[in-house]
Amino acid sequence: MLQVNEAQDIINKRISDLCYPASPERLYEPIRYVLRLGGKRIRPVFALLACNLFADDIEPAVEPAIGLEIFHNFTLLHDDIMDKANMRRGHSTVHKKWCDNVAILSGDAMQIDAYRHVSQVSQDKLKAVLNLFSQTALEVCEGQQYDMDFELREKVTLPEYIEMIRLKTAVLLACSLKIGAIIGGADVRDASLLYDFGINLGLSFQLQDDFLDVYGDINKFGKNIGGDIMCNKKTFLLISALNIADTQTKTELEKWMTIVHPNPQEKINAVTNIYNRLNIRRVCQTETDCFYQKALVALRDLNCPDQRKTVLRNYANRLINRES
Amino acid sequence: MLQVNEAQDIINKRISDLCYPASPERLYEPIRYVLRLGGKRIRPVFALLACNLFADDIEPAVEPAIGLEIFHNFTLLHDDIMDKANMRRGHSTVHKKWCDNVAILSGDAMQIDAYRHVSQVSQDKLKAVLNLFSQTALEVCEGQQYDMDFELREKVTLPEYIEMIRLKTAVLLACSLKIGAIIGGADVRDASLLYDFGINLGLSFQLQDDFLDVYGDINKFGKNIGGDIMCNKKTFLLISALNIADTQTKTELEKWMTIVHPNPQEKINAVTNIYNRLNIRRVCQTETDCFYQKALVALRDLNCPDQRKTVLRNYANRLINRES
Repeated sequence: MLQVNEAQDIINKRISDLCYPASPERLYEPIRYVLRLGGKRIRPVFALLACNLFADDIEPAVEPAIGLEIFHNFTLLHDDIMDKANMRRGHSTVHKKWCDNVAILSGDAMQIDAYRHVSQVSQDKLKAVLNLFSQTALEVCEGQQYDMDFELREKVTLPEYIEMIRLKTAVLLACSLKIGAIIGGADVRDASLLYDFGINLGLSFQLQDDFLDVYGDINKFGKNIGGDIMCNKKTFLLISALNIADTQTKTELEKWMTIVHPNPQEKINAVTNIYNRLNIRRVCQTETDCFYQKALVALRDLNCPDQRKTVLRNYANRLINRES
Repeated sequence: MLQVNEAQDIINKRISDLCYPASPERLYEPIRYVLRLGGKRIRPVFALLACNLFADDIEPAVEPAIGLEIFHNFTLLHDDIMDKANMRRGHSTVHKKWCDNVAILSGDAMQIDAYRHVSQVSQDKLKAVLNLFSQTALEVCEGQQYDMDFELREKVTLPEYIEMIRLKTAVLLACSLKIGAIIGGADVRDASLLYDFGINLGLSFQLQDDFLDVYGDINKFGKNIGGDIMCNKKTFLLISALNIADTQTKTELEKWMTIVHPNPQEKINAVTNIYNRLNIRRVCQTETDCFYQKALVALRDLNCPDQRKTVLRNYANRLINRES
């Protein structure tokens, strides 16, 4: 069986071997730059592992897997313009290093390049893979739009939030797994179970991200602790807290959200304290685990020998129990 | 044979029948808005006419043709952000009516939607159509990048300019024709000839556009006359003028290009006068006609009955002799 580090090595090698034209330099250099910044390569690794559940030869899944990683990086590139983010993976974002126009256009080119790679599948599987990829790509756009919409809204419900992160995060993980499965020769039921595995794992993964933003170890978590609290981001934690708080606690929480220039550490401590009083840590962990268990059930129901599932199960476990 | 107005009616009907989800509204409403603004629908019309050269049933080309029009409108949407253009087809541009973020994201969704439509071809033709479409889409990005690069450069040569407009404008026309031809069942040679027809017609078309910006009739040309002159755009006319002008005329031309806040009509008149003295009108018409003749040769060499070519030939003629 292909191990996770072997899958990562294959992906990293193939990404570093990608050749883009030298000219126009301001179109292709940002693409090279973004792909060099690395990342966990979770989506392409999932595609290879899913393929390997059903086929020993994972080579046919490599090009589409690269396409999924390019697509993911394209979404980060455009999201960073929209969010006015200056840093990504410890380096300047493209729109900051170059300018918005360069980031828009090189992002557009990356999306096309993603399609080029995803399309490198045998003719009999091309329609299924393409349809799934296009539907997923549109859903990711929908998720990003809801995310921006929610910033402007006063109240967001928990189901709305879960639906947003399903679109913005989970569907691309699920799509990566399902594309790998299709290429590996999985039947419709198994491909669909892997999709469900991906959705639930993705939701679990994002809730863990919300959790780590407040309760993570600053030395291990890539971002600053409390970033979501500082910008009043309507995360699972904040929405849950507003849902279950009594009137007095809710007023206190809302007071911290309206102070114009709060002392950062003071605000983070105060809001974290409220979360602690409301036991939000526990609420979040329960929900994270609930989605994670659903993911494991989907994996269990998969019609392939259990020992083939071990790598995927362990990788999922590592992702959910991560500290960064 | 399918007539141009019939092809336009089919395209317009199908575009107005397109259904996008109601929500998220800020993602899908801009797409509906842009597609409602109309336009000449040149690319999808070409795809249908090219298909009809080889097949009586053009229905299999309609969905891909719609995809080509959606892709074209996506490029306009993102170009308008980059060019900070406020108006398009007599209406506010998307980034002006909504905001940059909405324009970026709904453009991204349009590109995906374009792929969805272009992919609606039979399995045996899907690879050829997709490969051509992706290559073309990337080339259009390259063209837009060169166009922006040229704004920052002091000198652009004529071959560089022609290459830029080939990428930015001609390849998508050529791709539309070739996709129509492939779907209609053309062999490799004929599909390639139609591509050449499209490239040369596209170059001719763009030079005509440069020409009309200076010599067009304000009542017929959609944009203000002299717009390119006012923003010192390095068009075929300006590059040719700088190439053939004597030192004194060149200095005069460059003087007008460096005045910070010139009186618009004064600058337009002065530069047009220089063009007239240099006979740039004639230089441009000769070059336009040269590409147009090359297009006609490609069409002539096509291996199909001459009477089938009439509609396409007449349409090309109408486009090149247009006044708007």
